[in-house]
Amino acid sequence: MRMLINVPETVVADALRGMAAAHPELLVDVEHRVIVRRDAPVAGQVALVSGGGSGHEPLHGGFVGPGMLAAACPGEVFTSPVPDQMVRAAAAVDSGQGVVFVIKNYTGDVLNFDMAAELAEDEGIRLGRVLVHDDVAVSDGGDTAGRRGTGATLFVEKIAGAAAEAGAPLERVEAIGRQVNDLSRSFGVALSAVTTPAKGSPTFDLPGGELELGIGIHGEPGRERRPMMTAREIADISVDAVIEDREPRGPVLVLVNGMGATPLLELYGYNAEVQRALAERRVSVARTLVGNYVTSLDMAGCSVTLCEVDEELLGLWDAPVRTAALRWGR
Amino acid sequence: MRMLINVPETVVADALRGMAAAHPELLVDVEHRVIVRRDAPVAGQVALVSGGGSGHEPLHGGFVGPGMLAAACPGEVFTSPVPDQMVRAAAAVDSGQGVVFVIKNYTGDVLNFDMAAELAEDEGIRLGRVLVHDDVAVSDGGDTAGRRGTGATLFVEKIAGAAAEAGAPLERVEAIGRQVNDLSRSFGVALSAVTTPAKGSPTFDLPGGELELGIGIHGEPGRERRPMMTAREIADISVDAVIEDREPRGPVLVLVNGMGATPLLELYGYNAEVQRALAERRVSVARTLVGNYVTSLDMAGCSVTLCEVDEELLGLWDAPVRTAALRWGR
Repeated sequence: MRMLINVPETVVADALRGMAAAHPELLVDVEHRVIVRRDAPVAGQVALVSGGGSGHEPLHGGFVGPGMLAAACPGEVFTSPVPDQMVRAAAAVDSGQGVVFVIKNYTGDVLNFDMAAELAEDEGIRLGRVLVHDDVAVSDGGDTAGRRGTGATLFVEKIAGAAAEAGAPLERVEAIGRQVNDLSRSFGVALSAVTTPAKGSPTFDLPGGELELGIGIHGEPGRERRPMMTAREIADISVDAVIEDREPRGPVLVLVNGMGATPLLELYGYNAEVQRALAERRVSVARTLVGNYVTSLDMAGCSVTLCEVDEELLGLWDAPVRTAALRWGR
Repeated sequence: MRMLINVPETVVADALRGMAAAHPELLVDVEHRVIVRRDAPVAGQVALVSGGGSGHEPLHGGFVGPGMLAAACPGEVFTSPVPDQMVRAAAAVDSGQGVVFVIKNYTGDVLNFDMAAELAEDEGIRLGRVLVHDDVAVSDGGDTAGRRGTGATLFVEKIAGAAAEAGAPLERVEAIGRQVNDLSRSFGVALSAVTTPAKGSPTFDLPGGELELGIGIHGEPGRERRPMMTAREIADISVDAVIEDREPRGPVLVLVNGMGATPLLELYGYNAEVQRALAERRVSVARTLVGNYVTSLDMAGCSVTLCEVDEELLGLWDAPVRTAALRWGR
């Protein structure tokens, strides 16, 4: 096991302590596993709260801050957080304007966020919900009904977060989040399997010289296994999978996302092929983001997410954001 | 070979094309391999120029922008750029106030930057030089005389870049860069070997269950091989190696740097142990940065860099920066 850890049991708590030390601008409650922007609740603002299993960093804790999430709840590795975390986060950030939960579509996450929403509403907090389900590769994969939530989560959290920061009311923030999900599609490829701390060995067996198309972010098996391909071929397959599912009629945001262990040098080279593939298919690109944002621990691989944007959504994408992992504007 | 590339020969050019597409705020000359901030030359400012072998991304291209580098020259993977790139970069960014080269201490880099400095001076550009040699693990490693330049490069580029942005004259920017190098020390650990595109197989053989202490950023062999250790043990060894070489007498900047393939979850957990180790040794921490910044392609592992700072250096560290990989302030 090649891991930089103490014991598997303390991986999440250790990471939260390390995050607290590096980011004094965040309030990190290690005991209750909630990460909150320090100035929350912000008067007059709807608060965006997300969460999910750990192992996808910087998602979600790295996206807490002005212009994006008000709070995040990390679960154990690849395991949903519990309702108590979510209720605690909602109570910490609600200014009276309500809270919107951003939920990646996995059975455990959906169940727990639903339960948390009921409990929070019992406490008098108004609740909105956005379900992210952008992965075109697999429907009903693992024990999850419908499509999985992957790269589009970043788009939903950034754009709905900007709307919340600008003072949009609860129904509007929720509607924008749902719109971004509807306009987004993703497709991922693995060049290696993921190894979780608890298991200590790869979650699936991927022989050298092969890759897996249509993977999820938890080491779920993909749609198809193929002999190793060039970046050009992988870009063509990924872009086709995304736009055959939903053809953009306007300009798109592009996320070229690394799964964790693929070097940035390769991701930028892959982006060149993704841009070529989009240009050949007459898809117009408004903005591009390249990096490791929605990861799967030590998995090598990449995903492409497209989100069609109008002027309003593009303006919200460009709006200032100040988080550990995403930061621009003033 | 598990790489997201087309062919090894085009890896650097492909990455530059992908970088150009993602970062319209940069001028990327793919043919001549120079990355320049778009508003260069900036009147009244000294310009910082760096470069080195590719494979360490986001170093150096990801650090081009206001408050840090004016330009960067990427070489082939793990291979020094050529003098022509450096002269071209210097000419593109010189406002008349002069240019400071930031050079990591490797024989090829030093030779080529020296030659470029002579050529640029012949063209009437005033030149300063900062040599970065912060790695305490190995002296005279590989074919390099003296210590290697590693994580401290980020500190030198950020702090000297802030001085340049604030209008400091050439001699002062150079002096601050050299001071930051003198006050910085690093120590790195590998949990896996690195695989270069050209070679296609690991540069050294690291059996499962072992780690390598004191590694460089090019797959150079380390100081010692040991059975796998906990994050706590690795942090103690790394912090001791750094502070036994130079005991800080004031607060430090801490860089907990991933070598490329170690998940952010583990890096944050490792940071918790580094902070504990520093507190136990009564080293006071001013600021901490955690992430993959000075990498070695797909190597798993981490390094710790400390830089002692006074009020002036800390102010320059905190000053605004707007690059692809490092960004804060207005």
